Amino acid sequence: MGTPERAEKKVQKKLREARVARLATADADGRPHVVPVCFVYDGRAFYIALDAKPKRVGPARLARVRNLEANPNVALLLDNYQEDWRQLWYILVRGTAALLPASKRLEYARAVRRLKAKYAQYRAGFLPDGAPLIRILPRQIISWGRL
Amino acid sequence: MGTPERAEKKVQKKLREARVARLATADADGRPHVVPVCFVYDGRAFYIALDAKPKRVGPARLARVRNLEANPNVALLLDNYQEDWRQLWYILVRGTAALLPASKRLEYARAVRRLKAKYAQYRAGFLPDGAPLIRILPRQIISWGRL
Repeated sequence: MGTPERAEKKVQKKLREARVARLATADADGRPHVVPVCFVYDGRAFYIALDAKPKRVGPARLARVRNLEANPNVALLLDNYQEDWRQLWYILVRGTAALLPASKRLEYARAVRRLKAKYAQYRAGFLPDGAPLIRILPRQIISWGRL
Repeated sequence: MGTPERAEKKVQKKLREARVARLATADADGRPHVVPVCFVYDGRAFYIALDAKPKRVGPARLARVRNLEANPNVALLLDNYQEDWRQLWYILVRGTAALLPASKRLEYARAVRRLKAKYAQYRAGFLPDGAPLIRILPRQIISWGRL
């Protein structure tokens, strides 16, 4: 795995470059929920847009946001499944999340710029103006395997 | 999407064939945890082995099992990320899980056979004799997107 500094650099690189993650939330009664998400990481926080996917996402999206309002604890998983299990790795981010308040205009604009820079899909219209953003502040980042 | 029967068939097929899923658990305080897992589904229950991955998995694996003991509620996510977002889909299974008790010998043997039939990796030694199995009993299965 090399030095801790090198491992840390690899983790930071994956956190910035991974195209998809899975976001786990839980309701007030501790029942978990998990969905695939696109995201950006700026070295401090993760941002996820509630974007313009088909309407049928409704209930699941609401569950995600409803859960955050009842329970801010989240886990965000990055991994890359492959059939050679010796190459498996994952990064587990645990922290707290909330919708980014409308008052945080600069932070909102910066996160939207990053989302559009990372995902051509967002530049092509998958991110409607004023889409709400979830912000995750990590408390702990654990990595496992062959990063 | 075709008829509901056809959609249901597609869901059942994905549940049997998907190579990886993400398992979300939560501790007694509702803090979520999520890890990638290999699994089998027999049309009734999901089975996941606590397999012989490198020792460093220790804490995460323990978290998973510790959470189940404190809180049996789980969510299992199947999805297939791709850059054409019009093709995205996911299946979210919510239910309860526990370690399969040693007394369930026939069920244990059947699940191990299924795991080995599905994953060459398990046949090649990634599944040590007597590996504990997690059994998930689904309460709800939701699908979204272009299955």
